[in-house]
Amino acid sequence: MSLKETPIIIPQSMRAWVLFGPDDVRLVSKPVPRPGPAEVLVRIGAAAICGTDLEVLRHGRPGSIDGELPFGRGHVIGHEYAGTIAAVGPDVDEVQVGARVAVEIHAGCGRCQRCREGMYTSCLNYGSRRKGHCANGFTTDGGFAEYAVNHINTVYPIPDAMPFEEATLAVTAGTALYGLDVLGGLVAGATLLVIGPGPIGLMAVACGHALGAEVILAGTRPRRLELGRALGARHAVAVREQSLPAEVERITDGAGVDLVMECSGAPTALHEAVHAVKRGGRVCLAAFPHEAVLFDAAHVARNNIYLYGIRGEGNRAVGRAVALMAQGKISGAPLITHRLSLDALPVALETAEKRIGDAVKVVVVP
Amino acid sequence: MSLKETPIIIPQSMRAWVLFGPDDVRLVSKPVPRPGPAEVLVRIGAAAICGTDLEVLRHGRPGSIDGELPFGRGHVIGHEYAGTIAAVGPDVDEVQVGARVAVEIHAGCGRCQRCREGMYTSCLNYGSRRKGHCANGFTTDGGFAEYAVNHINTVYPIPDAMPFEEATLAVTAGTALYGLDVLGGLVAGATLLVIGPGPIGLMAVACGHALGAEVILAGTRPRRLELGRALGARHAVAVREQSLPAEVERITDGAGVDLVMECSGAPTALHEAVHAVKRGGRVCLAAFPHEAVLFDAAHVARNNIYLYGIRGEGNRAVGRAVALMAQGKISGAPLITHRLSLDALPVALETAEKRIGDAVKVVVVP
Amino acid sequence: MSLKETPIIIPQSMRAWVLFGPDDVRLVSKPVPRPGPAEVLVRIGAAAICGTDLEVLRHGRPGSIDGELPFGRGHVIGHEYAGTIAAVGPDVDEVQVGARVAVEIHAGCGRCQRCREGMYTSCLNYGSRRKGHCANGFTTDGGFAEYAVNHINTVYPIPDAMPFEEATLAVTAGTALYGLDVLGGLVAGATLLVIGPGPIGLMAVACGHALGAEVILAGTRPRRLELGRALGARHAVAVREQSLPAEVERITDGAGVDLVMECSGAPTALHEAVHAVKRGGRVCLAAFPHEAVLFDAAHVARNNIYLYGIRGEGNRAVGRAVALMAQGKISGAPLITHRLSLDALPVALETAEKRIGDAVKVVVVP
Amino acid sequence: MSLKETPIIIPQSMRAWVLFGPDDVRLVSKPVPRPGPAEVLVRIGAAAICGTDLEVLRHGRPGSIDGELPFGRGHVIGHEYAGTIAAVGPDVDEVQVGARVAVEIHAGCGRCQRCREGMYTSCLNYGSRRKGHCANGFTTDGGFAEYAVNHINTVYPIPDAMPFEEATLAVTAGTALYGLDVLGGLVAGATLLVIGPGPIGLMAVACGHALGAEVILAGTRPRRLELGRALGARHAVAVREQSLPAEVERITDGAGVDLVMECSGAPTALHEAVHAVKRGGRVCLAAFPHEAVLFDAAHVARNNIYLYGIRGEGNRAVGRAVALMAQGKISGAPLITHRLSLDALPVALETAEKRIGDAVKVVVVP
Repeated sequence: MSLKETPIIIPQSMRAWVLFGPDDVRLVSKPVPRPGPAEVLVRIGAAAICGTDLEVLRHGRPGSIDGELPFGRGHVIGHEYAGTIAAVGPDVDEVQVGARVAVEIHAGCGRCQRCREGMYTSCLNYGSRRKGHCANGFTTDGGFAEYAVNHINTVYPIPDAMPFEEATLAVTAGTALYGLDVLGGLVAGATLLVIGPGPIGLMAVACGHALGAEVILAGTRPRRLELGRALGARHAVAVREQSLPAEVERITDGAGVDLVMECSGAPTALHEAVHAVKRGGRVCLAAFPHEAVLFDAAHVARNNIYLYGIRGEGNRAVGRAVALMAQGKISGAPLITHRLSLDALPVALETAEKRIGDAVKVVVVP
Repeated sequence: MSLKETPIIIPQSMRAWVLFGPDDVRLVSKPVPRPGPAEVLVRIGAAAICGTDLEVLRHGRPGSIDGELPFGRGHVIGHEYAGTIAAVGPDVDEVQVGARVAVEIHAGCGRCQRCREGMYTSCLNYGSRRKGHCANGFTTDGGFAEYAVNHINTVYPIPDAMPFEEATLAVTAGTALYGLDVLGGLVAGATLLVIGPGPIGLMAVACGHALGAEVILAGTRPRRLELGRALGARHAVAVREQSLPAEVERITDGAGVDLVMECSGAPTALHEAVHAVKRGGRVCLAAFPHEAVLFDAAHVARNNIYLYGIRGEGNRAVGRAVALMAQGKISGAPLITHRLSLDALPVALETAEKRIGDAVKVVVVP
Repeated sequence: MSLKETPIIIPQSMRAWVLFGPDDVRLVSKPVPRPGPAEVLVRIGAAAICGTDLEVLRHGRPGSIDGELPFGRGHVIGHEYAGTIAAVGPDVDEVQVGARVAVEIHAGCGRCQRCREGMYTSCLNYGSRRKGHCANGFTTDGGFAEYAVNHINTVYPIPDAMPFEEATLAVTAGTALYGLDVLGGLVAGATLLVIGPGPIGLMAVACGHALGAEVILAGTRPRRLELGRALGARHAVAVREQSLPAEVERITDGAGVDLVMECSGAPTALHEAVHAVKRGGRVCLAAFPHEAVLFDAAHVARNNIYLYGIRGEGNRAVGRAVALMAQGKISGAPLITHRLSLDALPVALETAEKRIGDAVKVVVVP
Repeated sequence: MSLKETPIIIPQSMRAWVLFGPDDVRLVSKPVPRPGPAEVLVRIGAAAICGTDLEVLRHGRPGSIDGELPFGRGHVIGHEYAGTIAAVGPDVDEVQVGARVAVEIHAGCGRCQRCREGMYTSCLNYGSRRKGHCANGFTTDGGFAEYAVNHINTVYPIPDAMPFEEATLAVTAGTALYGLDVLGGLVAGATLLVIGPGPIGLMAVACGHALGAEVILAGTRPRRLELGRALGARHAVAVREQSLPAEVERITDGAGVDLVMECSGAPTALHEAVHAVKRGGRVCLAAFPHEAVLFDAAHVARNNIYLYGIRGEGNRAVGRAVALMAQGKISGAPLITHRLSLDALPVALETAEKRIGDAVKVVVVP
């Protein structure tokens, strides 16, 4: 852990992007928040845009705050960020002022059945500020701002050598890694099919490769598949030109794959996933199709397939992701295609949404 | 273990129901088979009819033998039976002649990835006799006969006091119990929704109740729901008259259930299952819908739901089921509605298929 | 959940036994505490004496409060109790005033690695009140008093029909059940050796029996072994007259047992445990020998034995224990041999320690 | 998989080192064995000496064959080897003649409780050839010969580029990896203490490092510690000059380590292991002390420590080790200090035993 000795001077107010209504986010001046017990104040170094930010912006989902949508409540969006500890709350000694940290999104309430089982991303008091749940950018204030308060459970020290920009991808990598965890964790030598080369899919490629899997990446856009190859995919299947089932059959000599990470949300992806996996195999569902999908339940039962829905980054996987990043075993850097200033957030959001200039990850810097 | 001292005289030939073609099963005289290494000969005491028998009879599924359907190969059907060890193969000392046993269906090849992981019901050499896989009644000869050869892995001693008829339900109970195992095994105090009061569903009620769950049973027919109550369901939801979601809401005070066993195969059951379970809950899929079903994948991901397809009775759960039956904690007896002679198998099959006289389990006795 | 409608009038002060120094506990008048956020106030209905109470009384262990022993800090001892919710803290809606509850001891800090994994009994901030850890009777005020504040995570509703006295055993049963959980949870049909017929051992017998295990109980005192038989032990080995290894050999036909719960703390018990269990078996260590013991590490490695130390009742096992008690599948009642008034705590402690009148569980009632 | 097209001509007889009595191994001419069902014939390319070979040579342990020691039964020793498939048994299509393979030691009987659970290294029929158990070099013929028969479950294809010498370390790496598996498998970012820089310890360093752990290696000899650093240990503690507890304290800022692999068999190692690990941590016991050791059972219980004895390389970890080796993530090459011809086995054994020339791994080549 590397600590800066210089005291950090915290201003009274800060710039922050607040959600006034659907598709209505405005840069305002807000008081810099103060960390309470078990909390720290992070001075944001960089914040990345995630597809879910666009969902929050437009529909208020997936979070709701004490049962209501986040519009018009002064809510600051943005959940993938990194920065420096600027202040700590009472009795916090887990990190020190000056420490550079990556963040994860969710801190559970600590009092529901799931939190007590360690499944804090499935907190049954999701969105209840009163009961202590936090999901920064979703149900508590997030990172498109100069400062954010984080629960102590959601910060992970990063080395000096890791740029904040790259560290914004810790939670993306943590989600991918958590997916591999729920698939059993023993991925060395396994064949892993990743469907969907979005950021989570690409980090699933990187993590799977780092831990020894033979990764097959399926997607539509050639540039993304190329990026996937650079991150460690041994095989890339362009699903518009190639038949995914035929390619899986060919690559695995008819055996099927051991594991699947479904990260595309495409309507047919789950069907392809459960048919690509071998008997007794496992599928992680990390994306949200907009509509109900057709599902071959008989095939799943007859072949003893297990299917794991995951909501984000659980089981402290962000910490494991940071470790792999710090060791150079995975890197988020290749995903970062655009850097803008915090003030240009609307441009950044549009760049991300429309994938202008083949945008993968767009990062804003205060 | 209770052993009969009287030597068992094994005849040269036996009566057996052989599958000649789709819906064409005939009573023939066959040589009594001889057990090889790691095998035993079971003199059948009783054999029950399962819905899957009707699938095998009509479509040859779910098994295939070395890649081909079982028709016209001298295949004996029937997979739920119990009886007495009549002879043992070379080097078999795990059981002795005279022991009374229940059976399970599957013995894996012992050499594929799944068998080596202990997942023998998901054997990757399923149906390959040459590689050592057995699934009596599916891919190797079954129990609608006077004798059957069983792999040593598929027999479980039962006490003298347990009638063979009841012991035919060991594999049914074992399937239900395996379902509870994959759901995590810790069911005491949990709310368990069982959908579908067929034999597996009813045994899931009995097993769940025995292990301390609060069981909700959902089904259509009042007689079955009544039977479910007798087996331990605290709540029974008649889904034609009542809304299952509303009842789950009411019974669980809005929390949703912890666990679901989907044993109906109904087209909407999986949808109802994933919406009945609370965030972070688990669903076991133990039935095979005939068509692809609509599946709310986004809900499953967003709520971190895990879904476990199971093929039959894995992980030696039949042994645990026999133990619970022997201790009187669960009983199969209430399910047995009809007893016929082996010679009357066609009548028995029709009784089971058409549920004549409210048939639940129909048993034939040689 | 059964709620009493009568409002509960809470007095200003209460009687409580406070630990002034080693072996120096005094009945004093203290203000009735007020529940804070995520807390409730319990009006004690009954409190039982545990062997660990004597440790706390004499040595201050196993707890320490913010790094110091609990002597002279106004600390109220007693951790096995049950009662009625008298008041709830802000935003507590999980239980209502008037609910009858059993308690568990530990609520973790919610912010350390272990708590975030769900292992709250292994909280790395054990004893740190500032960081939110509670272990009533050990590091926060306990139950030898008229009232106690409990974290919401440590109360479990009990049915009206369950006497408070019996409910004091929920945490004992929960510890035993947690032991079975870490041993894999699938105990039906397994042979389970319980060493040591103290309260935890006896409840391990009851829980193992309820879940379908074949239980062997080993101990010294005939009365305790008799009690163990009444609670479900199929075999009882009087280790002063019989050789435990020889008896295990005989009962298991030379196979060894599947699982062991070591609840005695006897110097040779662990050695006997690892030699009684079959290859690949599992041993739970739930007792604390006073000295280091000789351990056959080579045998443990060569036979792939797993050994699980447990500290108390983790993974919400108390909830499962309460469910089994409420269903009549286990009962703590046979263990309760003595009932005294709260004012007679010193007599109660002496009765428990010296096992006067064959004391098993001694309960005090305010 | 790379297959050689040239047919392999198999001679009638071969050179093999046979165990005549304690410390009496002789080079003899034996018929080349023929593979039966589920077996292959391996033409040995290289075979390494393991400490256990010396145990077998001297004491016949750890294996026994059908209950008797292996002396005077024509038994061929040696269990760490690699080579080329020279012939396959009936119905074997999992590998083809010409394939280059690494081996693992154990194939279970496939019919006992443990094998059916996937725990084949803990086979309850260990040493029973009749029931199908194999442990080459221990209870079935091994690899200090020109040819050996292997069960199909014990061969893993290796790439052309991997020298046989290095591939002999697959089983060593597989044992280390299996240790990490039983410790939970999620080692990225965890602190891992490896005690004992023998071959298994050194491969535990390499595997832990490859999967992202921060590895601390403890040992006595500077050369070994240096080798450990080269394989990925971030910290090396010379236990004769430094206090291991003090160093662990210093390195982990007082937190203790997350995981321990005890690979030394030193009398005090287990004590140090359980005190080095933090509360709720896990220890794998992969070495066999010659005498019973003192064990702080109370500390283990009070701190909820789990201890996993492992016998060798289970759960197909050798396959995962081969994958990591093939990907260059771990390498066995640095351990190979000596190469001799098969005929010089006695010299090789002496070199290994006396660590002549700082021997780590001594390999013989036919």
